[in-house]
Amino acid sequence: MSKRALISVSKKDGIVDFAKKLDEMGYEILSTGGTYRLLKDMGINAVKVSDVTGFPEILDGRVKTLHPKIHGGLLAIRDDENHRRQLEENGIKPIDIVAVNLYPFKETILKDDVTLEDAIENIDIGGPSMIRAAAKNYRYVTVLVDPDDYDKVVEEIKEYGNTKEETRFYLAMKAFGHTASYDSLIYNYLLDKNGVEFPDTITFSFEKSQDMRYGENPHQKAAFYKNSLKSFGISECVKLHGKELSFNNINDANAAIELLKEFDEPAAVAVKHTNPCGVAVADNIYDAFKKAYECDPVSIFGGIVAFNRKLDANTALELSKIFLEIIIAPDFEEEALAILEKKKNVRILKLSDGYVKEYDLKKVEGGILVQEKDEVDLYDDKLTVVTKNAPSERELKDLRFAWKVVKHVKSNAIVLAKDGMTVGIGAGQVNRIWPTEQSIRQAGEKARGSVLASDAFFPFPDVVEEASKAGITSIIQPGGSINDDASIDAADKAGISMIFTGIRHFKH
Amino acid sequence: MSKRALISVSKKDGIVDFAKKLDEMGYEILSTGGTYRLLKDMGINAVKVSDVTGFPEILDGRVKTLHPKIHGGLLAIRDDENHRRQLEENGIKPIDIVAVNLYPFKETILKDDVTLEDAIENIDIGGPSMIRAAAKNYRYVTVLVDPDDYDKVVEEIKEYGNTKEETRFYLAMKAFGHTASYDSLIYNYLLDKNGVEFPDTITFSFEKSQDMRYGENPHQKAAFYKNSLKSFGISECVKLHGKELSFNNINDANAAIELLKEFDEPAAVAVKHTNPCGVAVADNIYDAFKKAYECDPVSIFGGIVAFNRKLDANTALELSKIFLEIIIAPDFEEEALAILEKKKNVRILKLSDGYVKEYDLKKVEGGILVQEKDEVDLYDDKLTVVTKNAPSERELKDLRFAWKVVKHVKSNAIVLAKDGMTVGIGAGQVNRIWPTEQSIRQAGEKARGSVLASDAFFPFPDVVEEASKAGITSIIQPGGSINDDASIDAADKAGISMIFTGIRHFKH
Repeated sequence: MSKRALISVSKKDGIVDFAKKLDEMGYEILSTGGTYRLLKDMGINAVKVSDVTGFPEILDGRVKTLHPKIHGGLLAIRDDENHRRQLEENGIKPIDIVAVNLYPFKETILKDDVTLEDAIENIDIGGPSMIRAAAKNYRYVTVLVDPDDYDKVVEEIKEYGNTKEETRFYLAMKAFGHTASYDSLIYNYLLDKNGVEFPDTITFSFEKSQDMRYGENPHQKAAFYKNSLKSFGISECVKLHGKELSFNNINDANAAIELLKEFDEPAAVAVKHTNPCGVAVADNIYDAFKKAYECDPVSIFGGIVAFNRKLDANTALELSKIFLEIIIAPDFEEEALAILEKKKNVRILKLSDGYVKEYDLKKVEGGILVQEKDEVDLYDDKLTVVTKNAPSERELKDLRFAWKVVKHVKSNAIVLAKDGMTVGIGAGQVNRIWPTEQSIRQAGEKARGSVLASDAFFPFPDVVEEASKAGITSIIQPGGSINDDASIDAADKAGISMIFTGIRHFKH
Repeated sequence: MSKRALISVSKKDGIVDFAKKLDEMGYEILSTGGTYRLLKDMGINAVKVSDVTGFPEILDGRVKTLHPKIHGGLLAIRDDENHRRQLEENGIKPIDIVAVNLYPFKETILKDDVTLEDAIENIDIGGPSMIRAAAKNYRYVTVLVDPDDYDKVVEEIKEYGNTKEETRFYLAMKAFGHTASYDSLIYNYLLDKNGVEFPDTITFSFEKSQDMRYGENPHQKAAFYKNSLKSFGISECVKLHGKELSFNNINDANAAIELLKEFDEPAAVAVKHTNPCGVAVADNIYDAFKKAYECDPVSIFGGIVAFNRKLDANTALELSKIFLEIIIAPDFEEEALAILEKKKNVRILKLSDGYVKEYDLKKVEGGILVQEKDEVDLYDDKLTVVTKNAPSERELKDLRFAWKVVKHVKSNAIVLAKDGMTVGIGAGQVNRIWPTEQSIRQAGEKARGSVLASDAFFPFPDVVEEASKAGITSIIQPGGSINDDASIDAADKAGISMIFTGIRHFKH
């Protein structure tokens, strides 16, 4: 009995060549709709599925292959006498190869003007059924959802008369990856259309963007994945120069880009170990970089610098004087690129526009914490001056700047700023006084006349007292501690102005 | 024409009652296999699907519902004249309700002695086809995958004659959540059986464990999810007392538990903002806690303390003297629990055993970094003494202890330890000298005679020089800097012994 292949693909790449080879090897080819017409046009013998089932293709193609003559052919256990008998009794012939990929649901919902009806119409029903049936019965059936696998299958059949069981098992795995990802896209689309957040069941699907030499450390294997549907940010940056990005590069660059997005005015952001080590705004990115650099000319070594304006040659010259892992900008002057490319080891990334609403995720053992991203800056109507003194215009500007930065510093975080630049950054501490001391030590003389931002409230007046000693003149913090009064009193005593934001920016 | 419901469920909860009500409301009920027998036994009118299709149930139930008489009935657009005509021509009657849930693939693969054949046999083919077809055609068909929704559907039919379209749309969404999660489980199982890590397509599925008041900050919505297949660690802890865990509680508790697992001997771990602030081992957890507390009696305020032995009354008494958010232990003496429960606000968690191999994930914009967890401690055969002096037995013990702790401190990290306790912890800095200075400041007099662990190598000899000034006698670090010699020279000059591990422990 001749072997049979069922071919019905949405993505037509390589299918004609594959079908031709199967035809030449004596396979009977069953097909439907557009695939059938294509194969016939190319002179390949093919039988309509409706001729096999004896049932017409109905409902505009919604029901074609959902028939026992097909699914019996896919699901029968060939070694089972009863199954063989039942096939015979019901006039069902086994199917040995299934090459199916699915209606382009993803491409459909990515269209700007897609309607719900369009999207729903592009949910494939028959395809997943055949793929899943064939994959379940991988001991006998070869299932192909990826044109890249056609050649391997042809070669194995030529060499061994059939595919190897291990190949069929591998292809079955890929098949379920295809259907799992497909249904995850549909599910997430429908969640959005239903306005459901944090559903009882949550699924994620990602496509590999890059294999990595290793993860956070050399003994950890790792890979980088993009959102299956639509990607942006660090996941869509284009590398213009330099070696492949490492795991820590991507994590750090992401931190830099997220902070950079806080600013409309020309800004420079330097990041090390996911924390900013120098941030500044100015009339142009050259000045912004000089200021960001000045905050901490030591830690920036081996770090990342990101800009929100086209990189010019002058700024590139400054950057080329120090060792940086990555430079990021939305665009590069030709001359700037030429200057930077002289350095073999620096990675140059072109920032992409775009935004997708997505959850922030934190992996913990056995589960995952899912939350909205912290995309709030300040609620202006919640800003309250709580001290006798109010900040001056200049101070207010710096307070707002420092507040944007402190949101992106690991908690507990303190940021000192003056004239649109950070002068001290205290990060990632188990209490609040240490990052305060750290930022003041780092600022040195520049602490005097600077402003202070804190990501969370003050449980004690000690931060205000330290600030006062250092000559800091204004403070921005969430407020809300039962000890707020102590801090307010300390500020009033020192003549420091203080604003409560009513919003916290923990980041761990 | 009477309405029709197709009922075929693996999970039988509530199905008899639901079917009875549909029967009473005049629905014709189609069913298969075990569900059919159950309904008949309970005196409910039901028709066999094989009587509808005119095709026998074959291949041990592998092919029952995969027939145009079923799928045409599910997929027809009722407003479309052609569709209606085609139904009539082919003797197909519409199906209005589908109540289907799937073969227990998850329960099957969780069995200890499950074979690959068992698992594969429990992949449902007909069920997902019906669910997906019904969900696609939600404008006309009500699909139920969750017994919790039966009542709502019955009520709407009673009240309006049919379910509301918005309900059907919502149920369609749930249906795709069910199939997406189901196929994700199958895919991940097959990835494992194929030995494939970091596949081109990666899917995750989680089940909600807890809604949360908010996320990392009050303006961020959040929820906590468990692994769909099998959970462990913080995700499986049992809360014995206290308010619901917050987002940051879970994140912090996870950090404490992961660090705790490094130790076989009785250990106490105090954590704040995901960083340890005091860690110690001793002959019993009472002594371990006293030592861990001593490291930093200030930062522990409002923190988490975790133990790896049953909590006794004496230790509980000590704990009750300070304000803690969470206390974690594998078990609690009755008296200990009574002491702790007097505090209304403390959460008491009973640690669960268990382990699942899973990826560590780091969310970045538009994608995700996926890596093996850092589950390596040390490779003993890679440990190298690089200085003239070798550490003493006592120092070596403390070096190994400090190394376990520093792995769990955010980078750049420095840990000072003496006699099985941390005496200073420097965390989360953009350069290496700051956490060194921080840990020495914190240790005060206890720095003298302590040992130092660093999560990554020394680019400069400054850390060794600072260590020497503080009286630190031995150092453990990865090594591998091009400037290793400078640090080794500095150590030899100071009479400090130093070990290279050949392994790094970045954690961001």
